[in-house]
Amino acid sequence: MENYQSALDTAFHALADPTRRAMIARLIEGPASVKELAEPFEMGLPSLLKHVKVLEASGLINSEKTGRVRTCRLVPTQLAAAEDWLNEQRAIWEARTDRLAAFAENQHASETNNDVE
Amino acid sequence: MENYQSALDTAFHALADPTRRAMIARLIEGPASVKELAEPFEMGLPSLLKHVKVLEASGLINSEKTGRVRTCRLVPTQLAAAEDWLNEQRAIWEARTDRLAAFAENQHASETNNDVE
Repeated sequence: MENYQSALDTAFHALADPTRRAMIARLIEGPASVKELAEPFEMGLPSLLKHVKVLEASGLINSEKTGRVRTCRLVPTQLAAAEDWLNEQRAIWEARTDRLAAFAENQHASETNNDVE
Repeated sequence: MENYQSALDTAFHALADPTRRAMIARLIEGPASVKELAEPFEMGLPSLLKHVKVLEASGLINSEKTGRVRTCRLVPTQLAAAEDWLNEQRAIWEARTDRLAAFAENQHASETNNDVE
């Protein structure tokens, strides 16, 4: 449970930055070298590598170096953990609003019946 | 677009903490006073209020003070924005893996046909 919480901490932290979200969106299209990941951003390599490290530490991506090229890949299971948490909250919220709506409808129906009687 | 990105930044940042996620999960069940929100946590009020402020700044919750009681409420639209972003990424990922699977299947079929000929 503690591991699950800490995985969510690092995943949400990694997602709390527009550059890192753009890098995730790029890697969803397929693996990319650090150079390819850097292309859309006006950013020095050291800053970019910091973002790569945050993403790797969160488990959202992994990377492998072959010769001089480091290739990054998405790890979809970790992204799914963050999504699952949010989906779960929405399901609970919807169930609650459904219950409230049903309660309001019953109240209305019973008031209407009382009016008729 | 910039507002959308900055809303995602603050929403994901707010979610990157187990206490704040627990507070969100509590507020999904319905509004709560700061005192009620504090109950499950062994935490001083100042620390707790910091979390409330981060959640308010992210737009995930709002709060209203009546007399001496501050009541917090979930703002589900903001939670939905974070969820939508993640759902969208998964949809793109799934479409890509489906394309790759279809490609692999076609390759296999055409290789099998070649074997037959």
